[in-house]
Amino acid sequence: MNQRIVLSRRPVGWVDESCFRIEPCAEPECGAEDVLLQALYLSTDPYLRGRMNAGPSYAPGFELGRPIVSRVVARVIASRHARFRAGDLVWGFLDWAERCVVPRGEGLHRIDPSLGRASQFLSVLGMPGLTAWVGAIEIGRPAPGDTVYVSSAAGAVGQLAGQFAKRAGARVVGSAGSAHKVDFLLQRCGFAAAFDHRSVDIDEALQTHCPRGIDLYFDNVGGRTLEAALRHANVAARIAVCGMISAYNDTTDAGIRGLQAVLTQRIQLTGFIIYDHVHKLPAYQARVAPWLRSGELVFHEDIVPGFENAPAALIGMMKGEAIGKRLVQVAPE
Amino acid sequence: MNQRIVLSRRPVGWVDESCFRIEPCAEPECGAEDVLLQALYLSTDPYLRGRMNAGPSYAPGFELGRPIVSRVVARVIASRHARFRAGDLVWGFLDWAERCVVPRGEGLHRIDPSLGRASQFLSVLGMPGLTAWVGAIEIGRPAPGDTVYVSSAAGAVGQLAGQFAKRAGARVVGSAGSAHKVDFLLQRCGFAAAFDHRSVDIDEALQTHCPRGIDLYFDNVGGRTLEAALRHANVAARIAVCGMISAYNDTTDAGIRGLQAVLTQRIQLTGFIIYDHVHKLPAYQARVAPWLRSGELVFHEDIVPGFENAPAALIGMMKGEAIGKRLVQVAPE
Repeated sequence: MNQRIVLSRRPVGWVDESCFRIEPCAEPECGAEDVLLQALYLSTDPYLRGRMNAGPSYAPGFELGRPIVSRVVARVIASRHARFRAGDLVWGFLDWAERCVVPRGEGLHRIDPSLGRASQFLSVLGMPGLTAWVGAIEIGRPAPGDTVYVSSAAGAVGQLAGQFAKRAGARVVGSAGSAHKVDFLLQRCGFAAAFDHRSVDIDEALQTHCPRGIDLYFDNVGGRTLEAALRHANVAARIAVCGMISAYNDTTDAGIRGLQAVLTQRIQLTGFIIYDHVHKLPAYQARVAPWLRSGELVFHEDIVPGFENAPAALIGMMKGEAIGKRLVQVAPE
Repeated sequence: MNQRIVLSRRPVGWVDESCFRIEPCAEPECGAEDVLLQALYLSTDPYLRGRMNAGPSYAPGFELGRPIVSRVVARVIASRHARFRAGDLVWGFLDWAERCVVPRGEGLHRIDPSLGRASQFLSVLGMPGLTAWVGAIEIGRPAPGDTVYVSSAAGAVGQLAGQFAKRAGARVVGSAGSAHKVDFLLQRCGFAAAFDHRSVDIDEALQTHCPRGIDLYFDNVGGRTLEAALRHANVAARIAVCGMISAYNDTTDAGIRGLQAVLTQRIQLTGFIIYDHVHKLPAYQARVAPWLRSGELVFHEDIVPGFENAPAALIGMMKGEAIGKRLVQVAPE
């Protein structure tokens, strides 16, 4: 029997499992021009938190009683559309269901297996990777010798943002939420320094690890971390605002203090959303795939097996328990 | 007898006249290679507030007991340096004194009277004008049809920022602190709409006057006005942060709420300080002088006569009592 995961309750503050319901649903039939898919991997993403609210975020809100939607890698089981054949690997925005049909295959992107593994099209070869590239390189413009600070640095985007900035000649410093993540950044990702933001004073840590100040801050979290980065920003610093996860579950909106540094240090603070940049994906994939094959670029995926574990996997990702990109594996490749 | 104005006390919160002392000082002598100057106009500027603090701002702090320094237009009374002759008009960063000497004329810029009146080299042909140009045009990049909102719009910078954006085809909306200033924006500066921020709810006013949202916000004030602009910002809006005068006299640092809009609307917030752009001044003056002569560009100066009135003139400017650029006239041209 097919199953799906729906939004059963809108969260207030932190998400918990009562916000989701796993329910049986009809086995989809492959009608004329349909493409029938078996889900392989579900992407868990911080921005999904915003879509669980009723109000508008930068993507439309999920409806109560209707499935969660995210990027999904799937295998074509059957196709009655000329563009797809059984066995093809694809990705697209799909309902969280084990199997589904997509009329005319609309919105599906074919995966080129020569570039990388299927799961990587949700991670290093997909939107998290392109997000890191746009923020760290296009917006951040790191120069050789710059100090680059990345928060949530052991996350799907952060680990790559730091590595891309390092390739551009910058000295990269990361923060993350556990000693294990800090080890990952130092041992695997080649960060020059890293610290556990849960066990240190962030101002002291930035003073220690960024003694010449911050030229680029890749902001995944907002809040008190953004305030600290503003205090340590150099003249002409760039802040690429990729996420403000600290605000997503915050119902108080305390405000960002010290924004005067934007003026005194001539800072450029640029928010970006990867939807505006998806046309750059093929060029990005072509650039990065060789670095993946050669091992120059490290990328960690945290794959949780079992469709029914998707709500817990998403919640845990939001609480910071994953290293790298967290995916839910629905079926074997 | 010569006189000067010194910083007698550092302000906490708002500046008052007890922060200044007018005192007699020696009549300067024109030694070898010196240039002896008679001050004509003193510039009063919001950034001077920051220099009255002990801590670092983007310019070094004034010393207690030492003269206030700002841009000053002066006439050369005597010169023992080859670059200057008696009768020349110059501007530079000078002590607030009726007369002074400048060794080797260092830091003095000669004024070309064919471009405009002497006072205008502290206003429309000087840093306030260039500030408006850099923020409204270079950073703001207004497109035809864009909605541009300018706060402190009747100030030295704001009135020009709005007019420059209008010349680029934008629809310009301004806010200012009195009905008289609003009239000035509508009747003299050609703003499409303007409102008195002291007598309306700013969100309602922005809703009314910027019904299609804000594409460029030229921010002179920060604080609650910046928060409101963030709430009304369109996707891809630019915010040129020129001043945060609301914070200069604020000892609480309440924080800016709603900065998440930077992410959801992909806003670019860019702080700038005109010191970084002074090399553009000659090209700017050459561009703008014809518009001044033809009357296409309106510029209002508020000239307070009398050296001894400089402290009150500065304080009043900070409290918003002037329209346009406030100058203190020390001597007739």
